[in-house]
Amino acid sequence: MENLQQTLQNIINNKTKPIGALGQLEEIALQVGLIQNSTSPVIKNPTIVVFAGDHGIAATGLVNPYPQAVTAQMVLNFVAGGAAINVFCKQHDLALYVVDAGVNFDFDPQLQIVHGKIAKGTANYLEQPAMTMTQCEEAISLGKLVIARMLNNDCNCIGFGEMGIGNTSSAALLMSAITRQPIEFCVGRGTGVNDDQLQTKIETLKKVFELHQLQTLSNNATELLAAVGGFEIAMMVGAFIAAAENNMIIVVDGFITTAALLIAQQLHPAVLQYCIFAHQSNEQAHKAMLDHVGAKPLLQLGMRLGEGTGAALAIPLIQSAVNFLNQMASFESASVSSAS
Amino acid sequence: MENLQQTLQNIINNKTKPIGALGQLEEIALQVGLIQNSTSPVIKNPTIVVFAGDHGIAATGLVNPYPQAVTAQMVLNFVAGGAAINVFCKQHDLALYVVDAGVNFDFDPQLQIVHGKIAKGTANYLEQPAMTMTQCEEAISLGKLVIARMLNNDCNCIGFGEMGIGNTSSAALLMSAITRQPIEFCVGRGTGVNDDQLQTKIETLKKVFELHQLQTLSNNATELLAAVGGFEIAMMVGAFIAAAENNMIIVVDGFITTAALLIAQQLHPAVLQYCIFAHQSNEQAHKAMLDHVGAKPLLQLGMRLGEGTGAALAIPLIQSAVNFLNQMASFESASVSSAS
Repeated sequence: MENLQQTLQNIINNKTKPIGALGQLEEIALQVGLIQNSTSPVIKNPTIVVFAGDHGIAATGLVNPYPQAVTAQMVLNFVAGGAAINVFCKQHDLALYVVDAGVNFDFDPQLQIVHGKIAKGTANYLEQPAMTMTQCEEAISLGKLVIARMLNNDCNCIGFGEMGIGNTSSAALLMSAITRQPIEFCVGRGTGVNDDQLQTKIETLKKVFELHQLQTLSNNATELLAAVGGFEIAMMVGAFIAAAENNMIIVVDGFITTAALLIAQQLHPAVLQYCIFAHQSNEQAHKAMLDHVGAKPLLQLGMRLGEGTGAALAIPLIQSAVNFLNQMASFESASVSSAS
Repeated sequence: MENLQQTLQNIINNKTKPIGALGQLEEIALQVGLIQNSTSPVIKNPTIVVFAGDHGIAATGLVNPYPQAVTAQMVLNFVAGGAAINVFCKQHDLALYVVDAGVNFDFDPQLQIVHGKIAKGTANYLEQPAMTMTQCEEAISLGKLVIARMLNNDCNCIGFGEMGIGNTSSAALLMSAITRQPIEFCVGRGTGVNDDQLQTKIETLKKVFELHQLQTLSNNATELLAAVGGFEIAMMVGAFIAAAENNMIIVVDGFITTAALLIAQQLHPAVLQYCIFAHQSNEQAHKAMLDHVGAKPLLQLGMRLGEGTGAALAIPLIQSAVNFLNQMASFESASVSSAS
């Protein structure tokens, strides 16, 4: 491993450019080479997977300005090709899979999605755990199966996205428990919350934190996930682990995806080596979460949409890193003089 | 114009996403719509143009660790397809033109570049003005002709890049004169300068600043350009102006390109409306230069290579902005509920 790292670094340094001049792309080229144990890595069939699920809390309207029905409506929008993630996948020739991890809607079984519904939304965690331990483990297992399917498609690069009205609340709770930052720091506006709604969201989530005594669960990832997670988040946890176990390039999208990664990291610490962080979301707490895992995101475009949109925009940059490694001339091959 | 702006904003706000959730891409979509005076803008034959030129100062070795010969060697590398800009242009199907604005080398007239050599490098501005006013005006005119050629190719989006050993020094001098920041603030490491070399570079450029009394030229763009510019920079100035006059999308690359823009802006203030800033270079002073023109770059990848590499990586993001504007469903068309 150490030898490969040195070899890769030498190849990168001998390309016809000053040392380090391609910035983060050089780091990505090195990382992808190490992931694939190769000096000429290849990105095969890059794919975005959007995990969708509903949240019991959303029915209360306490944390989300959009009605719960939007989760299912957006799944149908994904299938119809009208969402932002469709546009970006089409532009960059990325495959797109939408997984029903637990949407509160009876989709037509013929609908072109991955049908993995655990239940029609989680329970309201203001009253009880969001899911049972059995449901939680089932979701993690199904997440691993999704990765098996991607491997069958000869895909080695997967961008994680999500859709679920109310899921920034789960993400904030998970973040607060794991990073030990106070709830008010972890709670963002989600998608379109105003000042009053933000205050209500914070107060509601503080109650939830107390009710489930989340501070006692900071090192018990599965119980924490069952208490306040979502089915789409639990499925992402399983998918993260399986993707790492299979040496895939994992492209992490925004706030909710990174929260799922915090859980996955507890269960399988090596997962981080496989992760490339697509972007820093406009959710204020996302930066702190990225800092917590020592991540340097590729993009900072002020986006906060989810769906894997950041991942889809970042994959071309990862491809650029791989391409310069494979295709650029060296000083020697191009007869270019190097620095004195 | 005001009406179109409002119409565009309404279209953007009604896409199936929370308002503002696509961050900077929304601003770019609006800007491109306004540039093209259209609610369904189109990017046609996006092209990177690399302007190359040599600098008399470079022969002294006082400001650059790479020998002057590298400019010509890199032009040949561009033609052979081995440079970073080749790799990125190929990836994103961007046309690439290399312009010999004044390289100190006799290229084969058959070489597939745009032959616009003003002279074999500028004069050493430690001794005399870098170019005569006639040369400066000729370079600006040739830059305009390059744009005319791009228009003939039905191109409406042009990324500006450059190559020229020693040209960060010209850029620093231009920046210092125009923004009135001291030389030591404007001088960066260029491509691969160490601490001692950096000190020598600063001292040398301070002498140049004094010699040409650059503080008296801050409002006289053409004389300033003639005193300490480069042929590739002067040609970019003309190209910026012509591109703006022809309603093209201008993608500004890094430190040297932005310095050229500072000059172009004095000659044709409206040019800024047409500019999209690809990235913030790792050259420390680039951020200050971007702030000076009120620019918010798309990427911050710690790159400092020039060649238009930042522009090539940013053009797909601009395309994403145009694509979401043209292709995403609205709340109404997708039957998605909006926020309460």
